[in-house]
Amino acid sequence: MMRKNGARGGAAGPPNMHHVAELAGVSVATVSNVLNHPEKVAGSTRSKVEKAIEQLGFTLNQTARALRSGDARSIGLVVIDLTNSLFVDVARGAQEQAQSQAFTLQLASANNDLAVQDAHLSFFDSARVSGVILAPMQESDEQIARVRRHGRPVVVVNFDSKLTDSCRVLIDNERAGYIAAKHLIDLGRTRIAFVAAHDDYQPVHDRRRGVRAAVEEAGGAVTLIELDTVDLDPPGGADAGRRLAGMPEQERPDAVLAVTDLLAMAIINELTNAGISVPEDVAVMGCDHNSAAWGGAIPLSSVSMQGEEMGRAAVDLLLGELRDEHGGHVHRRVLLQPHLVVRESTIGRERVPV
Amino acid sequence: MMRKNGARGGAAGPPNMHHVAELAGVSVATVSNVLNHPEKVAGSTRSKVEKAIEQLGFTLNQTARALRSGDARSIGLVVIDLTNSLFVDVARGAQEQAQSQAFTLQLASANNDLAVQDAHLSFFDSARVSGVILAPMQESDEQIARVRRHGRPVVVVNFDSKLTDSCRVLIDNERAGYIAAKHLIDLGRTRIAFVAAHDDYQPVHDRRRGVRAAVEEAGGAVTLIELDTVDLDPPGGADAGRRLAGMPEQERPDAVLAVTDLLAMAIINELTNAGISVPEDVAVMGCDHNSAAWGGAIPLSSVSMQGEEMGRAAVDLLLGELRDEHGGHVHRRVLLQPHLVVRESTIGRERVPV
Repeated sequence: MMRKNGARGGAAGPPNMHHVAELAGVSVATVSNVLNHPEKVAGSTRSKVEKAIEQLGFTLNQTARALRSGDARSIGLVVIDLTNSLFVDVARGAQEQAQSQAFTLQLASANNDLAVQDAHLSFFDSARVSGVILAPMQESDEQIARVRRHGRPVVVVNFDSKLTDSCRVLIDNERAGYIAAKHLIDLGRTRIAFVAAHDDYQPVHDRRRGVRAAVEEAGGAVTLIELDTVDLDPPGGADAGRRLAGMPEQERPDAVLAVTDLLAMAIINELTNAGISVPEDVAVMGCDHNSAAWGGAIPLSSVSMQGEEMGRAAVDLLLGELRDEHGGHVHRRVLLQPHLVVRESTIGRERVPV
Repeated sequence: MMRKNGARGGAAGPPNMHHVAELAGVSVATVSNVLNHPEKVAGSTRSKVEKAIEQLGFTLNQTARALRSGDARSIGLVVIDLTNSLFVDVARGAQEQAQSQAFTLQLASANNDLAVQDAHLSFFDSARVSGVILAPMQESDEQIARVRRHGRPVVVVNFDSKLTDSCRVLIDNERAGYIAAKHLIDLGRTRIAFVAAHDDYQPVHDRRRGVRAAVEEAGGAVTLIELDTVDLDPPGGADAGRRLAGMPEQERPDAVLAVTDLLAMAIINELTNAGISVPEDVAVMGCDHNSAAWGGAIPLSSVSMQGEEMGRAAVDLLLGELRDEHGGHVHRRVLLQPHLVVRESTIGRERVPV
């Protein structure tokens, strides 16, 4: 009942059930009922919906037809963790694209555990899905090879495997670090702390490279302070925040770029507790647009990782590979560009566009 | 890599991989690797992890053992929509509980479409899951009965079916409306607008009843203005917000309670655009703690719907029913209590606890 998002809002394309629902002033579930179980819908509501269908020239797409005929096929999606909203975004985008092509999508979270990831892959394999999309936490080529041997294509997202020969969809993490640091530099900040942990993780490593590039480009006017902390979650941020708050004022950075939003949120809490104003004294931003970090007192600037687009692109690649199953398939590597999301934590309340 | 949440943070129980990771200062993926693929981990890291394992008295739980032996069984979870973060919370709680009992969990979103819901149930049925948890958008007893006939228990969450004979987990939506309205009344607001659409949806209907009860309880000092809008999503909020902004100042409510956070977010945008201060002139709050609505300029007060707890309780009921499969099972109806989340949009920035 909460369907609707910016991405679809602006999209062109044939009218769908959401458009019908909006025009008729009813829920999408009601439209679905009119199409599938008209006997359950009051006559007056039914005619409103039918009128909207006619007015929009709406026709049931191939998904709906496949679902009715029991012909729908499935895609299995395995992600690292549902606490990171990036993967929820990936799932939403993948589901939307899958459905438009008469596929259903089932989702599983590995919960940061390779053995769980493996169990999910086995489940999807034995459930005979058409193909699998995997956002692995690290090289998983043995697991991927097993699924492939059973004739199912695997598309890898958000991990740039050096080993696996597969289609993959990536976000440009180096660019994410670069545009985040550039934003702080453009605001006139000159002492930038980059807070991170786990440089062995690809996204951390790549973002750090982008941050360094932006600072280097700015020349000697900007100093980079690299601050390692204990982990990528709030405890790591609290630790870093306390250390920043404890610095003498003249040594303290005037901007903090945390490699995750959860780190940034915890840093803001510690600074604020210590009487340091954000962003006046210290501008703070995150770097992965994780909605789990949006609950803080100060809306957080970040970099959007294009999760929905990642999901859509992965489905496109998977279906392409399915179409090519009789040979001639060429794997592709799709690199998506992140974009800056500016909120109060870097530019202050007054300047935030409403 | 972003695992960790309040619910688990305070939980008692045996040490798990997250505790080991924290103590060793490594990622959970690294701990998993030490346990499953020690050859992939550098010796120094491995000994840090092994030391933490010993220090905590960590032992692999039955899940890990089942996963290693290929014995893990599965639960299928079908929700209405992944845009509403309530269902992501449900999935997280369900996954955690399932995993602790040696089950994996696969998730599917019906995307507001009964035919898609049906296709997902068929998928899980033919994938031979042990049982299904369903958050239906409306009465779905035919679909549920079909799954049951194949010997799979079905637990219903977030919908109080009058027809289906099944275990169910509900949130007290009437109480949610009551505590939200009570919060505004306690702040001294006397003209409260309740903005809603789709009174045919159970949550809307029940929350309205709670709002009315709180206002009635306050006596003649508080007036309730019930404002219907076009839908539960941002366009409905923009519509309501424009109408509120257009009222003469002396007639305008001094508080707005929107039945969803997405409505509330859009209302705040419209009021702010019209030069009306939130919360000074008009306090605004939502009622479902949807993280999709947290991106606005003013942090939003709301009511938490206990999604993770809902997921955990549903898994417990399902596993209970599986244990009772040879007879004697008594269905249960579990009613969870919502709680108030107070942020700037009702009490102002100065008073928000950091």
